[in-house]
Amino acid sequence: MAYIRPNIDAMAGYVPGEQPGPGERVIKLNTNENPYPPSPRVLDVLRTTDWSVLRKYPDPMAAKVCRIVAEQFGVQPEQVLCGNGSDELLTLCMRALVGEGRRLAYPTPTYSLYPVLAAIQGAEVVEVPTGPEFAVPLDALAAVDAPLLFLCNPNAPTGVHVPDRAVLDLADRFGGVVVVDEAYADFGPGSVIQAAAGRDNVIVLRTLSKSYSLAGLRFGYAVGPDALMAGLAKCKDSYNCDAVSIEAAAAALADDEWMRANVEQIRSERHRLAEALAERGFGVTPSEANFLLARPPQGAARGLYEGLKARGILIRYWDRPRLDDKVRVTIGTPEENDALLSAVAEMQEEGLL
Amino acid sequence: MAYIRPNIDAMAGYVPGEQPGPGERVIKLNTNENPYPPSPRVLDVLRTTDWSVLRKYPDPMAAKVCRIVAEQFGVQPEQVLCGNGSDELLTLCMRALVGEGRRLAYPTPTYSLYPVLAAIQGAEVVEVPTGPEFAVPLDALAAVDAPLLFLCNPNAPTGVHVPDRAVLDLADRFGGVVVVDEAYADFGPGSVIQAAAGRDNVIVLRTLSKSYSLAGLRFGYAVGPDALMAGLAKCKDSYNCDAVSIEAAAAALADDEWMRANVEQIRSERHRLAEALAERGFGVTPSEANFLLARPPQGAARGLYEGLKARGILIRYWDRPRLDDKVRVTIGTPEENDALLSAVAEMQEEGLL
Repeated sequence: MAYIRPNIDAMAGYVPGEQPGPGERVIKLNTNENPYPPSPRVLDVLRTTDWSVLRKYPDPMAAKVCRIVAEQFGVQPEQVLCGNGSDELLTLCMRALVGEGRRLAYPTPTYSLYPVLAAIQGAEVVEVPTGPEFAVPLDALAAVDAPLLFLCNPNAPTGVHVPDRAVLDLADRFGGVVVVDEAYADFGPGSVIQAAAGRDNVIVLRTLSKSYSLAGLRFGYAVGPDALMAGLAKCKDSYNCDAVSIEAAAAALADDEWMRANVEQIRSERHRLAEALAERGFGVTPSEANFLLARPPQGAARGLYEGLKARGILIRYWDRPRLDDKVRVTIGTPEENDALLSAVAEMQEEGLL
Repeated sequence: MAYIRPNIDAMAGYVPGEQPGPGERVIKLNTNENPYPPSPRVLDVLRTTDWSVLRKYPDPMAAKVCRIVAEQFGVQPEQVLCGNGSDELLTLCMRALVGEGRRLAYPTPTYSLYPVLAAIQGAEVVEVPTGPEFAVPLDALAAVDAPLLFLCNPNAPTGVHVPDRAVLDLADRFGGVVVVDEAYADFGPGSVIQAAAGRDNVIVLRTLSKSYSLAGLRFGYAVGPDALMAGLAKCKDSYNCDAVSIEAAAAALADDEWMRANVEQIRSERHRLAEALAERGFGVTPSEANFLLARPPQGAARGLYEGLKARGILIRYWDRPRLDDKVRVTIGTPEENDALLSAVAEMQEEGLL
């Protein structure tokens, strides 16, 4: 197609995890969604607000949410920028910091959106392979000459977590901006939001999609130095967050307890599922996120993915080096995890695994 | 700031029309919002849907809305792409079609977001001045060598409309892609969506912000050839439209009658307000949109803007060549328009205008 830019024409585009059709009954453990509903306060806000206000434009800066986040983390509201999901914030980082032909660094494997964002921007990527057990290559990343580094922490799809101190040390040594994508941080042991608040080259991204059970709402936020937040804000759509999501996000963030209770459940199930899979011969990467990367016996990952799909259970499989012998399983409810374990047992008994 | 790209650092950023603070009582005729609420069907959907579904990701392509739009205009669903407001679709057009250092063409004055989008992309702009009475310079635009042309039709902030035939003729002669931004088309006499459906270089953008009274929802769509829509889709965030906006947009579009009734009211008030302002010595540009560009007597536009603001009425004023002697007034309810006219009369009686 002659009109489309060559870099866009050549790229494959991001492939989201498959979504079952309306009415299709499946156990969906493939896109790291939270198995529990969002806070009742969110549902109340949606049900009871007089939405005739939708005729008016929303607050361009979602100041209401910025104030809540600022208070939670002890930063200034000017250090917070809200986005239409943290995906939008990743895009804004690319656009504000990486010009055409410049470089984006990240460890591999990681969130498969990062190279897509680079391709859209016409930027180059510097992919630094993780070590044994998917250990994040901190020294090699620190040495990359690039204006931007994406560090998903805990990492997806591995679940591996880099301790806060090591993240800050990486930021001190890296010559550009480090974006710490903390999409899964609520499921893990730490966060650098507060510790990084004084630094001029660290942006931390959060999303309400995972721990707050609001993947459908599209709401995330960035915390970083004023100057970087102002630069990102110039690149965003004027009204990037809609009025419903602003109110719902404010309600969700104000009900931290609901989120924490669900996170506790998921962490406990993560532990149980990891042990049960290990007992069945799976090699399970220790995870600090709401999913497990697991290698089935003999690395028969594609067969497992297809067999589970035939049994109405969706998990994630990638036909890529280092991942093609593994599957990623989102932690579900106890019942969903039991269904997964039963299906695995059934496949093993039938000699299919 | 050393980390931010020079083109971003140097640019001013888009300035949305001012928003009154919570609880501030003003008559808001400054951002082309619809004075009537959205369809009751939208409010019903918001109130009655079980939003615990928000724990799951939304449909990445908003297929439900694509089908409704396709049916309304007699095109294929693959020719429709939904966006987080038509602002996002404008951004996608820039990113898919205009590389760093390449050119974006548009007539001036027009929607002041266009040059901002070019600056973010590191692109050049070719600004072609409109003629007397802000007539759109079709021949000069057709002759520009650029991959992309933005044509806001009816134009903002002038309200001037280019007939469909002339738009199609421009597209035939222009060497790149013509994006017809039909944000205000429901208030005017035409649309090229159906007529352009066979062309390979025309994209038409629509928004639910104006005629459908849903500025707060952030929902727009593009209609164009499959190949261009696929290219734009590669540049969008994976889940650019949230689940609430998809359901609400579907409900709004299904209630066309509600929208048309409001549009009729607004058109009738537009006529009345234009005549009343003309009687008071204003020079009013004939408008096919939901606003009027009007030159107060002696071009005392800034004084009018400030005087109305002091009286609790917000309108839009730009300190820019060709616009600094005019104001843009969004058409309100009959009561709001009466309040505006009374305030103008008062200022004239007091010798302030």
